[in-house]
Amino acid sequence: MKARVVYFVTGNIGKVSEVVKMADPDIKIEQIDYDYPEIQVDELEEVASYGAKHSSQTLGKSIIVEDSGLFIDALGGFPGPYSAYVFKTLGNEGILKLLRGESCRTATFRSVVGYCEPGGEPLLFVGSVDGVITGEMRGEGGFGYDPIFASGERTFGEMLLEEKNEISHRRGAFEAFLDWFKKSG
Amino acid sequence: MKARVVYFVTGNIGKVSEVVKMADPDIKIEQIDYDYPEIQVDELEEVASYGAKHSSQTLGKSIIVEDSGLFIDALGGFPGPYSAYVFKTLGNEGILKLLRGESCRTATFRSVVGYCEPGGEPLLFVGSVDGVITGEMRGEGGFGYDPIFASGERTFGEMLLEEKNEISHRRGAFEAFLDWFKKSG
Repeated sequence: MKARVVYFVTGNIGKVSEVVKMADPDIKIEQIDYDYPEIQVDELEEVASYGAKHSSQTLGKSIIVEDSGLFIDALGGFPGPYSAYVFKTLGNEGILKLLRGESCRTATFRSVVGYCEPGGEPLLFVGSVDGVITGEMRGEGGFGYDPIFASGERTFGEMLLEEKNEISHRRGAFEAFLDWFKKSG
Repeated sequence: MKARVVYFVTGNIGKVSEVVKMADPDIKIEQIDYDYPEIQVDELEEVASYGAKHSSQTLGKSIIVEDSGLFIDALGGFPGPYSAYVFKTLGNEGILKLLRGESCRTATFRSVVGYCEPGGEPLLFVGSVDGVITGEMRGEGGFGYDPIFASGERTFGEMLLEEKNEISHRRGAFEAFLDWFKKSG
């Protein structure tokens, strides 16, 4: 049986190896570098949808893109689709300052995988994990908002990478994609 | 002498009437509604450049787009190109909270006008105004961050629209464009 190939448009090798581990051996995930325009909209879904279609049209391949963000309820969903920019400018300190004195600390990490074939329309697969924003940073693991996002007792920063990957929003989205892709073959 | 027409791609009638007032009678500015994709980048220049080129190619007209943002020094330029989204989620209260206890309160309002002709490359025109973020909201005028942005003694929210338009970042960018456009005719 010939392996089916999907190209993952990303500059992040870590994300690629995460999905490669999840995929059956007859599904080949290959990284491809392409700087597709990320559109400025308030929904991850639109970013992934536009990026997937644009990339597959330009590259002429079946591709996936992934976009994720942290949505904090007390802040109207902020930083949401702009999580990377906000982390770069305000960092975890800024988020903690914004939530100072705030009793509602619930938040959701969301991930959206967009898949598109040349000439086709994009399909979206969503994963999410609920948690709370802690009062201070905890843990040395992970990256980005991981030290202030707790799922259960521990923050993502206090978990081993393997533990985090078991429950992560990204895993949920990729599993949904792989399930569908397998059946579609 | 025949008037030259430029189409201003925007949903904001206020911006159109502002530039119409500034233009010589032989330059006709017409509003056109077109929802071009705003790309998610950390520079207004890239948003305006991409939007201008995309719009002029799609619409087949000479067009201008305008993008603006508030850049706060102590916050690494935040909210910058994401000013509209941040205003919607955090509001002025969020900005004031982030700056609580911060002695450096300098900020810059920036505006970038992008102009593009069909088949051409986009040209950019920049305007800016320096100020400080006040300790609390002041004034009922303007919109967005105007009540917390002071240029001189008063905030933009405390100025009459005409006063604000005299010194605004947007005026600077449009003046630069109109100067060039006049000479290019």
